[in-house]
Amino acid sequence: MAPPTPRLVVSVDLKKKPWEQALPLHNRWHPEIPPVAHVKVSEVFRVEMVDWTGSVIKDDDSAADVKFIDLSTVHYLSGPIRVVDKNETPAMPSDLLAVEICNLGPLPGDEWGYTATFDRENGGGFLTDHFPCATKAIWYFEGIYAYSPHIPGVRFPGLTHPRIIGTAPSMELLNIWNEREREVEENGHKSLKLCEVLHSRPLANLPSTKGCHLGKIKKGTAEWEKIANETARTIPGRENGGNCDIKNLSRGSKIYLPVFVEGANLSTSDMHFSQGGGEVSFCGAIEMSGFVELKCEIIIGGMKEYLTPMGPTPLHVNPIFEIGPVEPRFSEWLVFEGISVDESGRQHFLDASVAYKRAVLNAIDYLSKFGYSKEQVYLLLSCCPCEGRISGIVDAPNAVATLAIPTAIFDQDIRPKAGKVPIGPRLVRKPDVLRCSYDGNLPTTKNPAASM
Amino acid sequence: MAPPTPRLVVSVDLKKKPWEQALPLHNRWHPEIPPVAHVKVSEVFRVEMVDWTGSVIKDDDSAADVKFIDLSTVHYLSGPIRVVDKNETPAMPSDLLAVEICNLGPLPGDEWGYTATFDRENGGGFLTDHFPCATKAIWYFEGIYAYSPHIPGVRFPGLTHPRIIGTAPSMELLNIWNEREREVEENGHKSLKLCEVLHSRPLANLPSTKGCHLGKIKKGTAEWEKIANETARTIPGRENGGNCDIKNLSRGSKIYLPVFVEGANLSTSDMHFSQGGGEVSFCGAIEMSGFVELKCEIIIGGMKEYLTPMGPTPLHVNPIFEIGPVEPRFSEWLVFEGISVDESGRQHFLDASVAYKRAVLNAIDYLSKFGYSKEQVYLLLSCCPCEGRISGIVDAPNAVATLAIPTAIFDQDIRPKAGKVPIGPRLVRKPDVLRCSYDGNLPTTKNPAASM
Amino acid sequence: MAPPTPRLVVSVDLKKKPWEQALPLHNRWHPEIPPVAHVKVSEVFRVEMVDWTGSVIKDDDSAADVKFIDLSTVHYLSGPIRVVDKNETPAMPSDLLAVEICNLGPLPGDEWGYTATFDRENGGGFLTDHFPCATKAIWYFEGIYAYSPHIPGVRFPGLTHPRIIGTAPSMELLNIWNEREREVEENGHKSLKLCEVLHSRPLANLPSTKGCHLGKIKKGTAEWEKIANETARTIPGRENGGNCDIKNLSRGSKIYLPVFVEGANLSTSDMHFSQGGGEVSFCGAIEMSGFVELKCEIIIGGMKEYLTPMGPTPLHVNPIFEIGPVEPRFSEWLVFEGISVDESGRQHFLDASVAYKRAVLNAIDYLSKFGYSKEQVYLLLSCCPCEGRISGIVDAPNAVATLAIPTAIFDQDIRPKAGKVPIGPRLVRKPDVLRCSYDGNLPTTKNPAASM
Amino acid sequence: MAPPTPRLVVSVDLKKKPWEQALPLHNRWHPEIPPVAHVKVSEVFRVEMVDWTGSVIKDDDSAADVKFIDLSTVHYLSGPIRVVDKNETPAMPSDLLAVEICNLGPLPGDEWGYTATFDRENGGGFLTDHFPCATKAIWYFEGIYAYSPHIPGVRFPGLTHPRIIGTAPSMELLNIWNEREREVEENGHKSLKLCEVLHSRPLANLPSTKGCHLGKIKKGTAEWEKIANETARTIPGRENGGNCDIKNLSRGSKIYLPVFVEGANLSTSDMHFSQGGGEVSFCGAIEMSGFVELKCEIIIGGMKEYLTPMGPTPLHVNPIFEIGPVEPRFSEWLVFEGISVDESGRQHFLDASVAYKRAVLNAIDYLSKFGYSKEQVYLLLSCCPCEGRISGIVDAPNAVATLAIPTAIFDQDIRPKAGKVPIGPRLVRKPDVLRCSYDGNLPTTKNPAASM
Repeated sequence: MAPPTPRLVVSVDLKKKPWEQALPLHNRWHPEIPPVAHVKVSEVFRVEMVDWTGSVIKDDDSAADVKFIDLSTVHYLSGPIRVVDKNETPAMPSDLLAVEICNLGPLPGDEWGYTATFDRENGGGFLTDHFPCATKAIWYFEGIYAYSPHIPGVRFPGLTHPRIIGTAPSMELLNIWNEREREVEENGHKSLKLCEVLHSRPLANLPSTKGCHLGKIKKGTAEWEKIANETARTIPGRENGGNCDIKNLSRGSKIYLPVFVEGANLSTSDMHFSQGGGEVSFCGAIEMSGFVELKCEIIIGGMKEYLTPMGPTPLHVNPIFEIGPVEPRFSEWLVFEGISVDESGRQHFLDASVAYKRAVLNAIDYLSKFGYSKEQVYLLLSCCPCEGRISGIVDAPNAVATLAIPTAIFDQDIRPKAGKVPIGPRLVRKPDVLRCSYDGNLPTTKNPAASM
Repeated sequence: MAPPTPRLVVSVDLKKKPWEQALPLHNRWHPEIPPVAHVKVSEVFRVEMVDWTGSVIKDDDSAADVKFIDLSTVHYLSGPIRVVDKNETPAMPSDLLAVEICNLGPLPGDEWGYTATFDRENGGGFLTDHFPCATKAIWYFEGIYAYSPHIPGVRFPGLTHPRIIGTAPSMELLNIWNEREREVEENGHKSLKLCEVLHSRPLANLPSTKGCHLGKIKKGTAEWEKIANETARTIPGRENGGNCDIKNLSRGSKIYLPVFVEGANLSTSDMHFSQGGGEVSFCGAIEMSGFVELKCEIIIGGMKEYLTPMGPTPLHVNPIFEIGPVEPRFSEWLVFEGISVDESGRQHFLDASVAYKRAVLNAIDYLSKFGYSKEQVYLLLSCCPCEGRISGIVDAPNAVATLAIPTAIFDQDIRPKAGKVPIGPRLVRKPDVLRCSYDGNLPTTKNPAASM
Repeated sequence: MAPPTPRLVVSVDLKKKPWEQALPLHNRWHPEIPPVAHVKVSEVFRVEMVDWTGSVIKDDDSAADVKFIDLSTVHYLSGPIRVVDKNETPAMPSDLLAVEICNLGPLPGDEWGYTATFDRENGGGFLTDHFPCATKAIWYFEGIYAYSPHIPGVRFPGLTHPRIIGTAPSMELLNIWNEREREVEENGHKSLKLCEVLHSRPLANLPSTKGCHLGKIKKGTAEWEKIANETARTIPGRENGGNCDIKNLSRGSKIYLPVFVEGANLSTSDMHFSQGGGEVSFCGAIEMSGFVELKCEIIIGGMKEYLTPMGPTPLHVNPIFEIGPVEPRFSEWLVFEGISVDESGRQHFLDASVAYKRAVLNAIDYLSKFGYSKEQVYLLLSCCPCEGRISGIVDAPNAVATLAIPTAIFDQDIRPKAGKVPIGPRLVRKPDVLRCSYDGNLPTTKNPAASM
Repeated sequence: MAPPTPRLVVSVDLKKKPWEQALPLHNRWHPEIPPVAHVKVSEVFRVEMVDWTGSVIKDDDSAADVKFIDLSTVHYLSGPIRVVDKNETPAMPSDLLAVEICNLGPLPGDEWGYTATFDRENGGGFLTDHFPCATKAIWYFEGIYAYSPHIPGVRFPGLTHPRIIGTAPSMELLNIWNEREREVEENGHKSLKLCEVLHSRPLANLPSTKGCHLGKIKKGTAEWEKIANETARTIPGRENGGNCDIKNLSRGSKIYLPVFVEGANLSTSDMHFSQGGGEVSFCGAIEMSGFVELKCEIIIGGMKEYLTPMGPTPLHVNPIFEIGPVEPRFSEWLVFEGISVDESGRQHFLDASVAYKRAVLNAIDYLSKFGYSKEQVYLLLSCCPCEGRISGIVDAPNAVATLAIPTAIFDQDIRPKAGKVPIGPRLVRKPDVLRCSYDGNLPTTKNPAASM
């Protein structure tokens, strides 16, 4: 009969830096980062988190904070949290940790977020070869809805979710990550695809002490030095979950995570008010601070029973997700298609990344006819509830990817219509996104057809 | 006040071969294939179509028809259909043709379909390196539902759609296609990705007279020879629409197609009772004969107004799609994730195709624990209403792709559960899919972790 | 491996009168009407049906057919159909007959329908005291969509369903019906509610030979005379299903009907392209001819096991329904509320009928501000996919009923807005519904506030 | 750029009594109750509220608190809140107040609720003649889900909403209410319907000083005495909104309320975690304390422009509601039907209240076959996300009402099935709801068929 108020196990104070928090945050994956909290199965507990940059990005009038951000410091994770059963026995390697997302939202008093593109030479993004400048849009929340002073004419309900949720890797898994990512970092430029189509750099982010925070492990100690040189960055999603970018993981969802270390050592971070398929601008959802309320179960031996490894070791697994019953209902969608032919007209073979790049570019150009700048649309498609779909992956040589946009988020009818062509400067909306110049040396991709 | 019964403009007789039909079918794209029918804007008209193979695949007890199919003959298209406005003025290049799908379904008396995988050396598919054998499953329809004697325990409502719908290319566009596809055919094997991860072959299907059908143009004539050597195959989706594999294009949807030749010359084909995201097995939807009822509008100048070309010419465009309001409602989804690390453990850079391959492999292995053979699951995921999503495309080096499966299509609870592990031979369902041996020489990909 | 094409067990020829059909139709419920067809469990079979009036209402320019209709002849039912199991054993009283609706639609070549209000003194309807005239609107179908030349500016997808589906009553049940309905017919006028709020007349429709059709039983025979004097009309829904008016019973739905006579003797009729909650205008859905494809199962003893009688006999049961997964998806709804205070301002006690009447009246007046006549809105709300809901039934003295209308069916934004009041003659749309004069003597309810 | 954190304008302290709150609550409608807070249009503000009984019902092991509750004290409303525009001009009579529900939920630290039935002689409910005892079930919340130790085997997502939201009536409107409700109280027993079918008592709740709280107006003053004798109870929904019981008014919804007094004087109360159609048990939703975040707009003159009065004065209007895009998605529904024949077998004329009573009784008896007590099902149907629908209201003499229950809320398959009859004591779940004896004198309705 005791009231089941979720217990607050990790709190954050937004007035403090990430490393000043009472329970220090961490920004790397490593098995030896000590837990900051303990939870039992079946209890609902609450975890607060800073935004992924630790309050570097401000609700102000400039994108300079985005342009000059030190990306070695992201993402700040809340945790690790050790999970035990009713008898205090911890989750063990080869178990499956079922984590239900009971509730989540912004932190009271901090109901805003931002979407941005990084400078091409400091972070980049999916379309960084077309859009090399740092840009930023601020979003304000009205309950389930978000709107932006920088992208007028749209308002949409968020499907709020934590972008990062994962368990700690074992040392063996960590070594696998570091080795395979070093390989791509060192040899990747030789591949046709890497060099000429997707321009984000660097190719991977290898362990480095720069910007590293390891929770309760004190900076400057020998232990800190050793671990910092081994830790994996939190940028990519991997076998432990992590940055999985699944935009539907909202209230009522469940995540089945493999356990690699005793206690599971669960961490979570990077709350998104809303995200589009692919999170194309990279800083691409509506980024915010926030809280989650979670409930864990341990499925003993579940990693073995349910996850089939695919790769050279039993650790080559991926988590499973269960999507909950509450999502915004949209009736009509406008769908943009891309095929795996790049902007220069060159054919790629069943390449879904190229096809999706083309679909997003098509959508940006289309929507810019309705009074938006292309930068506004790029940010919008990165964070609104649009769907990135792999439609066809077998019809050689073209993969077909699609981007489906719910028409109801706009305050105008964006469908093609006979006799009512909306093109023209009279429709251009002001203001635009916040923007910095691009001062780098890398060439910008031009669309040859644009000037015809 | 006249009743608006849709006019039947293309009929087919399933007892006849594709080339024996009253209005002869065609299986290539070319501007000079003459229209077989004319329609006006606003009228609802009906088009019948054979299945994509022209009745080569039978409702019988063997997959031999799949194994030995002559793929030079697919897909059989109904059309071309010339579209004119109320004043008999035809659609013109640079217009946009808005095609609404008013109704569709199987042909009365032919309410069945099939899903198959081709032999690795005659067609292949997305996972052909894992599943090199020709297999086949037959599906029967009960109204909106399909079930298969070869994949027991599932039943699902179809989101029926035509896989192929497109306008005729101009000669200029046709040349662009042929050149870029020849390039990949000739040079593609040098790329890392092409050779080692996606194993479907051939890389492209260049013009050839073998198996060619050109509608009203008589085989053996000089005209036929000339055109047959120029025509593009219908396998990939391209600028004219074509094989776009968008599984949601069902009743109430609208397709905005660019017009490249006078009259638009609309063709359609390859009805799917249902398809999964990516149509992974290649012969991968529930393939059937069928009909569509369509309504056209011409948006004059709409190609210029609404479609921004992206590439070296103004012809490098893609169609736009509008998805209708009627789809099966599913409440809960189980989601499988893949990252761009391949089966050997090697890291790829933001490669959504690799990530999706991994997601599908994960789903196959998972579902095979519930009493299915892997071949059954591979066919099932190719044709059931599952969603292929690009979740994250920016978190170097890993793209994250997901495959979301509605749990309600199964007659058992397929979610992971504590203490109820369903693995074991007692659950294996019989019968299995129909299967042929693989007699080829190409190596099969093994999962190194499977034997641990 | 035989193709499962649904077997056509009842066909109709729309050029013939209902009583001239090869398998004669019936328009009364009686246990002794002989089956016209036999079906086995698990087989999918097809039943065609005329519209409920047997083609009396025409696609023409007048509502005179509605005004002068002979309602003693409705509804024309297809059947009865005798249902047997695999061993030819018929369904027996106390079984439950599970009927799945596999498919349905208009009859090819007859893709149109109508919505109408009857003259107050020949049929009436829910609001007949406000709208005493016979009116008619014709609807045309474009696949899943309907539009009307008489109600411009709306178009909506249909949730097509048979209004009537039921089993034959036993003689005992028939007697119960006739007795209780005679009671209301004879004594009903004494009640406050009957006389002053709901004005439809007659109160009940007792057995009568006028207009009676009994299928294979020949008119003029002694048997015919006897049965005709005992048969129940098909107007109300009752224990056997019948006219249940459940607008969601579309493809994929299942109906669990009690069995009262050997073989079940299933009949069905009155296809609706679409219906609103309550079907308020009485001839109120989009009425059409059509077909259904059904599949039956027999749950032996299921009536006893699953249906609890509520009333003085074991026959006082009601069927159960299972709604399928395919419905149009609407995102936004405008909701009108009614409380149980009538148009004169008088308070009624928890009366959901009065509350719903008020909700519908509120919606009619509201929508008439957007350029529609009230008659247009009355017909529209009777047939569009709107929801009639019982919201509160306990807050004495007011029942609260609501009518929720999907905003997407209109080509204008119908929500209240500051500063953009759409009232005024400039918006009035033409043409209007077809209309006859009301020549009767009954008073029309006026809204006292309308003239203020 | 200031963050738009919702301003807390009414806070409550659950450790204090309703009349001890810093901003005193009120439990009656009257124009002269002074506002306790002021808000501007466009600002998002937060209102906290106690549960409707002001913490009388406890999270304990007895239903005695329900049985002996003093219902003269409900519902405790937060407000009134005066609404002004940007220039401090208040909303005026004849305006429309558009209130958007931006966010809502339980109060942190109080995440539980209850559903109950009152004793037949102290409150009653829709089925009080069948279920005369006071009962209670406690619900606990896990984010969007609720579960009850007293109703095992169900868990469902809530569509949380405030049951009561309304503006203050003018004196003229208040007089109308009091007169018409006195009329039913004094003369109502003469009607057939009131006396024999719906047994809730009293018929209306007239003004009385007992239990009255008037916010800032001090008890014992002459002003208090005068007003208390004029105020309307908050039980029924009326022209000002109030207790409208619309279960879909959750996040993203908008309510258009008529304004009757300067400043609108908005009050809200009685948060429901979830409610079923009709809220049949009266204390029938999952009742809880909670908060709402609201945003107001004033549509000047909007009451005149958009609301058509229906009745003897211009005040006889009803609010309009707009339902938001976020609701739990359910795929399958089991639907129970009721017709307007009562438990004694007597026929009523198109009476939707009787039909709905029958539908609910049918559902209770059906579900009790799956291991539940009837009291458990009665409470469950009152609070789970089930739909009460008016299906047919024109087919004399039977109204058809339906109750649609989403099958996914149960942990077992509740559909009828051949050969698997779940009836029997082995399935009865324990524990049951909390229950008191009924010590009154009123007869309990028996189902004559139950003993056959």
